[in-house]
Amino acid sequence: MRIILILFLMVGLLSQADAQQHKRARDYGIQIGVLSTGAHNAITDVAGVQVGHQTLNSSNHIRTGVTAILPHSGNIFQQKVPAAVYVGNGFGKLAGTTQVQELGNIETPVILTNTLSIGTAMNAVVGYTLQQPGNETVQSVNAVVGETNDGYLNDIRGRHVTEADVVKAIAQAAGGPVAEGAVGAGTGTVCFGFKGGIGTSSRLLPEQVGGYTVGVLVQTNFGGVLQVNGVPVGKELNHYYMNQELKDSADGSCMIVVATDAPVDARNLERMAKRAMLGLAKTGGIASNGSGDYVIAFSTATTLRVPYTSEVKTETVTLLRNDEMSPLFMAVIEATEEAIINSLFAAETTTGKENRTVEALPVKKVLSILKKHNAIERY
Amino acid sequence: MRIILILFLMVGLLSQADAQQHKRARDYGIQIGVLSTGAHNAITDVAGVQVGHQTLNSSNHIRTGVTAILPHSGNIFQQKVPAAVYVGNGFGKLAGTTQVQELGNIETPVILTNTLSIGTAMNAVVGYTLQQPGNETVQSVNAVVGETNDGYLNDIRGRHVTEADVVKAIAQAAGGPVAEGAVGAGTGTVCFGFKGGIGTSSRLLPEQVGGYTVGVLVQTNFGGVLQVNGVPVGKELNHYYMNQELKDSADGSCMIVVATDAPVDARNLERMAKRAMLGLAKTGGIASNGSGDYVIAFSTATTLRVPYTSEVKTETVTLLRNDEMSPLFMAVIEATEEAIINSLFAAETTTGKENRTVEALPVKKVLSILKKHNAIERY
Amino acid sequence: MRIILILFLMVGLLSQADAQQHKRARDYGIQIGVLSTGAHNAITDVAGVQVGHQTLNSSNHIRTGVTAILPHSGNIFQQKVPAAVYVGNGFGKLAGTTQVQELGNIETPVILTNTLSIGTAMNAVVGYTLQQPGNETVQSVNAVVGETNDGYLNDIRGRHVTEADVVKAIAQAAGGPVAEGAVGAGTGTVCFGFKGGIGTSSRLLPEQVGGYTVGVLVQTNFGGVLQVNGVPVGKELNHYYMNQELKDSADGSCMIVVATDAPVDARNLERMAKRAMLGLAKTGGIASNGSGDYVIAFSTATTLRVPYTSEVKTETVTLLRNDEMSPLFMAVIEATEEAIINSLFAAETTTGKENRTVEALPVKKVLSILKKHNAIERY
Amino acid sequence: MRIILILFLMVGLLSQADAQQHKRARDYGIQIGVLSTGAHNAITDVAGVQVGHQTLNSSNHIRTGVTAILPHSGNIFQQKVPAAVYVGNGFGKLAGTTQVQELGNIETPVILTNTLSIGTAMNAVVGYTLQQPGNETVQSVNAVVGETNDGYLNDIRGRHVTEADVVKAIAQAAGGPVAEGAVGAGTGTVCFGFKGGIGTSSRLLPEQVGGYTVGVLVQTNFGGVLQVNGVPVGKELNHYYMNQELKDSADGSCMIVVATDAPVDARNLERMAKRAMLGLAKTGGIASNGSGDYVIAFSTATTLRVPYTSEVKTETVTLLRNDEMSPLFMAVIEATEEAIINSLFAAETTTGKENRTVEALPVKKVLSILKKHNAIERY
Repeated sequence: MRIILILFLMVGLLSQADAQQHKRARDYGIQIGVLSTGAHNAITDVAGVQVGHQTLNSSNHIRTGVTAILPHSGNIFQQKVPAAVYVGNGFGKLAGTTQVQELGNIETPVILTNTLSIGTAMNAVVGYTLQQPGNETVQSVNAVVGETNDGYLNDIRGRHVTEADVVKAIAQAAGGPVAEGAVGAGTGTVCFGFKGGIGTSSRLLPEQVGGYTVGVLVQTNFGGVLQVNGVPVGKELNHYYMNQELKDSADGSCMIVVATDAPVDARNLERMAKRAMLGLAKTGGIASNGSGDYVIAFSTATTLRVPYTSEVKTETVTLLRNDEMSPLFMAVIEATEEAIINSLFAAETTTGKENRTVEALPVKKVLSILKKHNAIERY
Repeated sequence: MRIILILFLMVGLLSQADAQQHKRARDYGIQIGVLSTGAHNAITDVAGVQVGHQTLNSSNHIRTGVTAILPHSGNIFQQKVPAAVYVGNGFGKLAGTTQVQELGNIETPVILTNTLSIGTAMNAVVGYTLQQPGNETVQSVNAVVGETNDGYLNDIRGRHVTEADVVKAIAQAAGGPVAEGAVGAGTGTVCFGFKGGIGTSSRLLPEQVGGYTVGVLVQTNFGGVLQVNGVPVGKELNHYYMNQELKDSADGSCMIVVATDAPVDARNLERMAKRAMLGLAKTGGIASNGSGDYVIAFSTATTLRVPYTSEVKTETVTLLRNDEMSPLFMAVIEATEEAIINSLFAAETTTGKENRTVEALPVKKVLSILKKHNAIERY
Repeated sequence: MRIILILFLMVGLLSQADAQQHKRARDYGIQIGVLSTGAHNAITDVAGVQVGHQTLNSSNHIRTGVTAILPHSGNIFQQKVPAAVYVGNGFGKLAGTTQVQELGNIETPVILTNTLSIGTAMNAVVGYTLQQPGNETVQSVNAVVGETNDGYLNDIRGRHVTEADVVKAIAQAAGGPVAEGAVGAGTGTVCFGFKGGIGTSSRLLPEQVGGYTVGVLVQTNFGGVLQVNGVPVGKELNHYYMNQELKDSADGSCMIVVATDAPVDARNLERMAKRAMLGLAKTGGIASNGSGDYVIAFSTATTLRVPYTSEVKTETVTLLRNDEMSPLFMAVIEATEEAIINSLFAAETTTGKENRTVEALPVKKVLSILKKHNAIERY
Repeated sequence: MRIILILFLMVGLLSQADAQQHKRARDYGIQIGVLSTGAHNAITDVAGVQVGHQTLNSSNHIRTGVTAILPHSGNIFQQKVPAAVYVGNGFGKLAGTTQVQELGNIETPVILTNTLSIGTAMNAVVGYTLQQPGNETVQSVNAVVGETNDGYLNDIRGRHVTEADVVKAIAQAAGGPVAEGAVGAGTGTVCFGFKGGIGTSSRLLPEQVGGYTVGVLVQTNFGGVLQVNGVPVGKELNHYYMNQELKDSADGSCMIVVATDAPVDARNLERMAKRAMLGLAKTGGIASNGSGDYVIAFSTATTLRVPYTSEVKTETVTLLRNDEMSPLFMAVIEATEEAIINSLFAAETTTGKENRTVEALPVKKVLSILKKHNAIERY
């Protein structure tokens, strides 16, 4: 994806740091959607999924990092998981796309980083995979590495991410609560003209429709006309794409990772991936020309694991029927919307390259607007 | 797309006919998005585009029809227009898709009707095209015919649409205001559990970004959790997919036609088409498993017409750069959202097959909810 | 697909009817590929698959028809089969494509006919399906109907195929040997400038790689530079696209139906479908601009049937691993190549509309050329 | 793509080095197709296209390299060229695919290397682009890097390709004759069980159909049943996939680069790219499960260049009509077939990792077989 340098001229007028910003949207009574969340309201609510961040925040100009999402804690190459990729808007560089689409699985951790560090991250993932015990004879690795462009705050041309950073992100991956905001691959990103970053959310389906969990993690770096739970926050803050001064950019990107424990194959995972863009839409995103909007979806259902080698020629799998997919679609939409909003609530004002500052979402003002619109339960 | 028969048990509790329902959403002060509309806030604001309806509303059981959208008033086969199709969810039967995708143009009117009348409509379009003056030697016609399933209110198995009905819809096509609601192909459709139908809207870009017009027409027959301009109307009416009783269905379909006078080729029209699904998302649609959600986009730019035959081997065209597409993307999103809402505001309570009734959107209640959410300018 | 009227000026010089032409290519010792064929060397070697033709050959100008391919003899709507569609070149009108791609199955017979009869055939398939016992409440049917353009020999604008013709083709479907050449949907088609039509072939994999059967049926109506088992027959007959006079057209289309009993899902069926175009390539086809080249692939594996309704939310299936697909790919390529050649060997010289004649492949000359190239085992 | 270690047990029996192998297929009178070639019968016949190789052939175990293809000799980032990617079989890692597909252009040289060096090559291309004069503010680069797996002969896990090697391949790029065989990215590849490598060919269309040039370059590393100009060479050598011993593998990959000076946009370039797989089919390739078969096509037409920045919002371009595409399709098919065959004729017997040897195509025997089949003009 591309970044436009002229974009955030008016940000300084809008906000000041806000002590409450570490609370998540839901902590303020913002209830996005109609489904329940999982225990941590995070992608890690899908059992076995782990997330690790490596944050590069040093000097005046390095504001970048790496986020790793692991479908399970075993050897992913030896025990691949069913997966799909959907390209919302392809102004981006997601490595590994075509093999995932062809074979219907992923065989490495999913890595997110900045646009110009894809090559380094691929090298790191390849090295990591070759060195894992059991992979001694492996000669082909399909590294899945996504990116957004943090070049407004980060000296992206300096390419400061190292292979060691990527390996650390993988090594640090864990279950449980996930750090959000200006961390990992979200350290330097910008979303709707405010500081963006990493966000996550989850949904738990009612037992009658399977009781499955869907978790989403996003790296937000895009624009449009911000809506928070339907409320036209961007418009009220006069801070949106296509406002009268036409100064704001909608460009940037959004990487979206969708995990589920539902037993769904690559075809239905692709359908789930497509719905993540509907969740992005509900935050006011427009998938602008310069945006690299990609969704990677995988299933952790252990019975669907694809062993690298097998003595038998077939696999017996139990899969959800097409007819049962709609609740999962809705869960993806809701969790994606909330993950994006969470990234904005969590990210702190950040100053970076060339002394540029991107303000955090002015949470107090936002809550006040939400209250005016009766869109918040308590405040 | 598919229809579930058990769906609208609770509708009767919700609403009564509402004298104001012929006003459009914008007449109530509901301002969707940030861009201006065209003169009629209709797809016909794109110069040359014409719309015609043929409504079949007779006996107790026939509630169906045909809607025709003409890119221009000339011989479309001889003067094809650049076009694209995007499949949001493919549980549908849109005829003509693959040829549009391969060649990048359409050569017939776009016809919308019910699911089981696609064949009849294709025959009609083929006959219409073969008989147009100038087409005497034509031997191949790619009819573009979309559908949604009106089988809850309409005796769809009776297949009451005739070729003559289709030809009438074409013949009646005109510019200017477009009838909305339970007319034409929207006569028997259902949307978010309320009476759906035809809706339309348009956006006019500021001169600085080209001054182009984007118009959208929809045939709404889908579900989810209704939001009107961001306000969770479906939730407040306790009438939504995945509510506690799990009684509502999200199935159904949405056909979306996008027209523009911007000079964009098939590749960028496909990108515009993709954005229409983002507009659908903002109304609460989820593109459920059983939904046939398709977008057909075309450009009316006269310089981009593709003559059927040509003495020269090349065409010289002036096209928008990729970099200029984002405002058009946003226009598509806004116009699609508003067109869907317009379809709901316009459609009247309808009783059909087996004495089933689908209530109109309870406009008074909706306005009251919008007012509570401060989402309406005047009321 | 499209047809060019100026195409076959030189055909008359080339050939005369040939008494041997009812033999199939293999009967002459032409061994295409390295794999064995099934018992009938036909798509019906895949157990349960049935083929029916309805040939319309009357007056001076009606040279068209219908061919129906049934995946099994039961109620296909109630017991759908996994399926995929691949679009080799989309200048065609294959109805049903997007739903097959979305849901991964087909629910009707596959019908082939002429370009302008798609609507009629859809109506027939819908009617047939609605009327089948057990389908009394069905309200949505995804008819799969393909076509090529027989308008050189057939009065295609007269649209002589009726719904009854389509139903007859279905009713006449049977297993065992399949009539080839100028029958059914191949009655009026032209291939490499010679009379084309229906052809079929099959391959049986060795037991070590599963022992599966792959069957292919084609409706040939395309062009290029004919090769028979690798031998440049078109060049030697000076009868090919882009020869010095530039008089021949490559336009036309090829519909290809691939059946297998291998347990493969929609994703791997799509991969098999793609390989059919490689088989077409080996006959000298070029998938010209005006060609509608489509491949429909399905699996008859009974354990993979998709019931229309189910009391359980999941399906347990045994599927071939990706790693086992290559032999099936090769079988598709070989069977497609041979099916096309078979269509040419079987089709007889045909005179039709406006007293035009398309000569049969001059089999004697072809055999002589093959002998010269040592490409035939006996002669 | 993947490599199977057990593959070439019988190669040693077949061939011995052959003094004539530096001649190209056409030098022996092998005339593939019906169209004329360009001056060098190479991708460089498309004016402005340059090719550079960096060959890594050292120690006992390093048999790999890099090949760079430049669409023009200027700053490609500032003057992008229209382009498309087609995925024949996606078991591969072609970097840059989705952005090319979205935006319809490429902005870097096309780099080919081995599977595990994609990351390094991307880093090199990004560095090269950032450092080019004029690109000082560039913050996003879509590196196009393809690969095949040379791990049978090369110590691929050692990842011996350096960024400097990639830059050298770019720097060494030149027009004129192109080195073929075991050079550059083809140093360690295997094709049909024989030594593969780089091959190239071109076609020049007659003036009546535009006089355009199409050039193809391939990196061959795949399998199947080798055919040389239609003659079943693999079968006659008893050296093919699915032979009775079932010992040969068809896995591997083929990267195909298609260049043309015809004025065609991304949509029609994608159609051209698809036809390259038809050319591969004619050599006996089957696009096996483990194959990464990708085609990158671009147009060098100077009037179609896409400037990175522009003061105007539109571009005026002259494009070929769809109707004129078929001769270009045929040119792609022929040039791809011949490029693959050229790679085999040029590649010399190579010994590499673990003292493994892959024999060159036994040219004398092949010519003898061709002669027997009367498929060669002189010998």
